[in-house]
Amino acid sequence: MNEFLQAAIDEAKKGFAEGGIPIGSVLVHNGKIIGRGHNKRVQDGSVILHGEMDALENAGRQPASVYKECTIYTTLSPCSMCSGTILLYGIPKVVIGENKTFVGEEELLKSRGVDVTVVDNEECYNLMQQFIQEKPALWNEDIGED
Amino acid sequence: MNEFLQAAIDEAKKGFAEGGIPIGSVLVHNGKIIGRGHNKRVQDGSVILHGEMDALENAGRQPASVYKECTIYTTLSPCSMCSGTILLYGIPKVVIGENKTFVGEEELLKSRGVDVTVVDNEECYNLMQQFIQEKPALWNEDIGED
Repeated sequence: MNEFLQAAIDEAKKGFAEGGIPIGSVLVHNGKIIGRGHNKRVQDGSVILHGEMDALENAGRQPASVYKECTIYTTLSPCSMCSGTILLYGIPKVVIGENKTFVGEEELLKSRGVDVTVVDNEECYNLMQQFIQEKPALWNEDIGED
Repeated sequence: MNEFLQAAIDEAKKGFAEGGIPIGSVLVHNGKIIGRGHNKRVQDGSVILHGEMDALENAGRQPASVYKECTIYTTLSPCSMCSGTILLYGIPKVVIGENKTFVGEEELLKSRGVDVTVVDNEECYNLMQQFIQEKPALWNEDIGED
């Protein structure tokens, strides 16, 4: 198991333990995690702190040159908000834990030259399935669906 | 002048007065502002609180049905992050103060069925020009450029 995907999964589990949506992410620069985070919809009442956004926010203000050397790891395929943010900062590489639960904007990312890898990790998938079974309305809210 | 664009401009001016990036936004539902905000990169050290994101965050958690009846007003053409967020929540209408300073993902939004209107407002443009002249590096940082 890749240590960075594992760190993203640890973030997702932290979110789950807090009663939140179990999606986690880490931003990696030159082999070092510079930001980690998880979905904060429940915990902070936030509509923008998806896992990836939280990781980026926690990394703080970085020069453009740093983002352009980063890889972002996320437990779930990134939605249009998170994908748009990846494009804004020119992050060249995205590693996705799973995309069976939800397929985000992978095609848009690829069309703009982002290197997208889907790992198909069972733990990421099982966490989401357990969560959605328990709180389907919360999940729909997070992806803007009724 | 449209009262909602005026409210977005007021937000942009507030940001400028705080020493920040002068971009403001309001989220409008059924003729009423439910969230207002401005770019908080300087004020909060935030890399995700663009004007539109701040307005959405300040509107709080809303049902999908509400977003789908909203219009978002923004003083500047929305970047890929903000556009991705508009797509995530299915906001059907975007009114843009100006796009001479920066053209965001207007084409992507239109291709997904979002109604995009550019007002070409001089005050929005002048605010940005004054800001960029004073702090070019800060502006580049905000749009992920060197």
